Amino acid sequence: SKTYRIAAIAGDGIGKEVLPEGLRVLEQAARKWDLNLSIEVLEWANCDYYLEHGQMMPDDWFEQLKGFDAIYFGAVGWPDKVPDHISLWGSLLKFRRDFDQYVNIRPVRLFPGVPCPLAGREAGDIDFVVIRENTEGEYSSVGGKMFEGTEHEFVLQESVFTRRGVDRILKFAFDLAQTRPRKQLTSATKSNGISISMPYWDERTERMAEQYPEVSWDKQHIDILCARFVLQPDRFDVVVASNLFGDILSDLGPACAGTIGIAPSANLDPERRFPSLFEPVHGSAPDIYGRNIANPIAMIWSGALMLDFLGNGDERYRAAHDGILRAIERVIAEGPITPDLGGQGSTQDVGAAIVSAL
Amino acid sequence: SKTYRIAAIAGDGIGKEVLPEGLRVLEQAARKWDLNLSIEVLEWANCDYYLEHGQMMPDDWFEQLKGFDAIYFGAVGWPDKVPDHISLWGSLLKFRRDFDQYVNIRPVRLFPGVPCPLAGREAGDIDFVVIRENTEGEYSSVGGKMFEGTEHEFVLQESVFTRRGVDRILKFAFDLAQTRPRKQLTSATKSNGISISMPYWDERTERMAEQYPEVSWDKQHIDILCARFVLQPDRFDVVVASNLFGDILSDLGPACAGTIGIAPSANLDPERRFPSLFEPVHGSAPDIYGRNIANPIAMIWSGALMLDFLGNGDERYRAAHDGILRAIERVIAEGPITPDLGGQGSTQDVGAAIVSAL
Ligand SMILES: CC(C)[C@H](C(=O)O)[C@@H](O)C(=O)O
Ligand SMILES: CC(C)[C@H](C(=O)O)[C@@H](O)C(=O)O
Repeated sequence: SKTYRIAAIAGDGIGKEVLPEGLRVLEQAARKWDLNLSIEVLEWANCDYYLEHGQMMPDDWFEQLKGFDAIYFGAVGWPDKVPDHISLWGSLLKFRRDFDQYVNIRPVRLFPGVPCPLAGREAGDIDFVVIRENTEGEYSSVGGKMFEGTEHEFVLQESVFTRRGVDRILKFAFDLAQTRPRKQLTSATKSNGISISMPYWDERTERMAEQYPEVSWDKQHIDILCARFVLQPDRFDVVVASNLFGDILSDLGPACAGTIGIAPSANLDPERRFPSLFEPVHGSAPDIYGRNIANPIAMIWSGALMLDFLGNGDERYRAAHDGILRAIERVIAEGPITPDLGGQGSTQDVGAAIVSAL
Repeated sequence: SKTYRIAAIAGDGIGKEVLPEGLRVLEQAARKWDLNLSIEVLEWANCDYYLEHGQMMPDDWFEQLKGFDAIYFGAVGWPDKVPDHISLWGSLLKFRRDFDQYVNIRPVRLFPGVPCPLAGREAGDIDFVVIRENTEGEYSSVGGKMFEGTEHEFVLQESVFTRRGVDRILKFAFDLAQTRPRKQLTSATKSNGISISMPYWDERTERMAEQYPEVSWDKQHIDILCARFVLQPDRFDVVVASNLFGDILSDLGPACAGTIGIAPSANLDPERRFPSLFEPVHGSAPDIYGRNIANPIAMIWSGALMLDFLGNGDERYRAAHDGILRAIERVIAEGPITPDLGGQGSTQDVGAAIVSAL
């Protein structure tokens, strides 16, 4: 059977600490479920590379990567070395856009044993998924500055919503909602304030919804939606959102479920023309780098999502995904856990525990 | 001494339920502290007016309002009658922009007796203020649609950040931080993803900060900042944000402090060229309208902010503000309270209790 080629990129900060744990788990899973993985570690796409070469990646990055089936990605960014917008637009955001990874899947779940910052919530109460548009919207490189350096200076930043871009993410989200037991979808909007793009988003959502009579859906303005993540997180099933709103909701959701240290994400090209990318939701966290306390679970869970996507229905890969999830659950409940979850375990302690739970 | 002219506008939905309670409290405060208020209720700026006249307000709205010292505003929006972007851009957002109310102040505080959705937080743990830019940024009317009706259709929506607009809100926020005991400021950004406008916002923040050596400040990306509102709300003192980010943070903050039913806001023209506007953060809430369960406290607290601003240092007005706040605190602790706070009181019960606590 086919061997899947995976490019592993650590990036910066705690990306360098959590990637090795993710790789150990993948190797163990490959042994156990007899998976065919070929993993290659690439040393670029980080801020030190930038300091040396004046760019985040080699000129032929696209050629080098395009033959891979997946990119297993840590985290990029070290603002004291390189401004964030340069490091991110020179790596992660390029991958998402140039490899047309237009779906960003971000599950949010409260696990047994995770201390929840919300009062009175228990495992099972929070279990939804944010589907984030990942290639356009508010993250655009169009715009500029005028009257620079004078008091009349101003900056324009374009948000771009195409019918293709909006419809394909809505379709993905409605398709997903259709397969889930609750069949419920919430669309994040802000059409009362952002008066050109967001009414368009709403209009396309209404149109798409007509084709999914079984899915019950609503739209909520992003301000009140954020409030409801805190007040009524049990209400949500599938939440579909633009690039920026999805970014916000997929940090806020995991925070409500205890920690962003465990939140995974899948940046998918569902048509499999290009490699898809799997990464933790958390960033490079310069403030905790080097202390060996970063939680590797987001990285490891992202690896599980990767196997599931690669296998594309193959039972061994599905079993590996499920097995890793069970191992994560067990280690969260029994320890060791890192300080963000209230424990004293190191990054490696947690990685090793998950490997042996497998 | 001067008589202050206040235009009272109920708007739609629960705006019509909470405004009368706000007015009762103002009248009682005027008696008690010997304030000179002249209040006029205006019947336009609501969706029924739109259905009758094809616009939210009369043509001479600006002329009618510009002589007032303040607008005491309920809430606008009834999407089944008029799309939100039409009703809001035809009223509230016009006031904010045309009266150059460039500062939106939104205090967030956990009161004794309010059930907090965050585990283990007590009154006093959450006490910060969101300073929101209120006239430009992501809320712009610039943009449009191309290739309409075809599959190549796309929409552009401009965000506009002027040096004047950015600097004046930053200055207001740093000035405020300077006067507070903790002297701490957080700037909401997203310069890693939104690569033109947000780096500009950061650049101006750094520049402004140089003039406030006593203020300790940091910048946080909006995604992680939202997460920290849930995980570490005690960390914040003054939070300054663009129009959209301020909108999000000022619903999320109050949700973390128990309910958006009590959150007030002041839309200020600090230079007093035009009337300033005072309104609850919550909207018109069509889903609960008519059940008489809307919490009037946000409206009443907004009234207190209005008196304080109008008085501009006059001790009677300051005393009225403080007295209303104490009355609110007492009624929250002793009841009656509305269902959003876990009680069974009606809108009028709460209003009456605050009036008699005065
Ligand atoms: C109603 C809406 C346009 C408004 C806004 O987004 O500014 C509201 O949410 C607010 O926060 O005052
Ligand atoms: C690092 C940053 C550009 C990125 C984003 O905003 O997309 C991150 O926050 C994420 O959520 O993946």
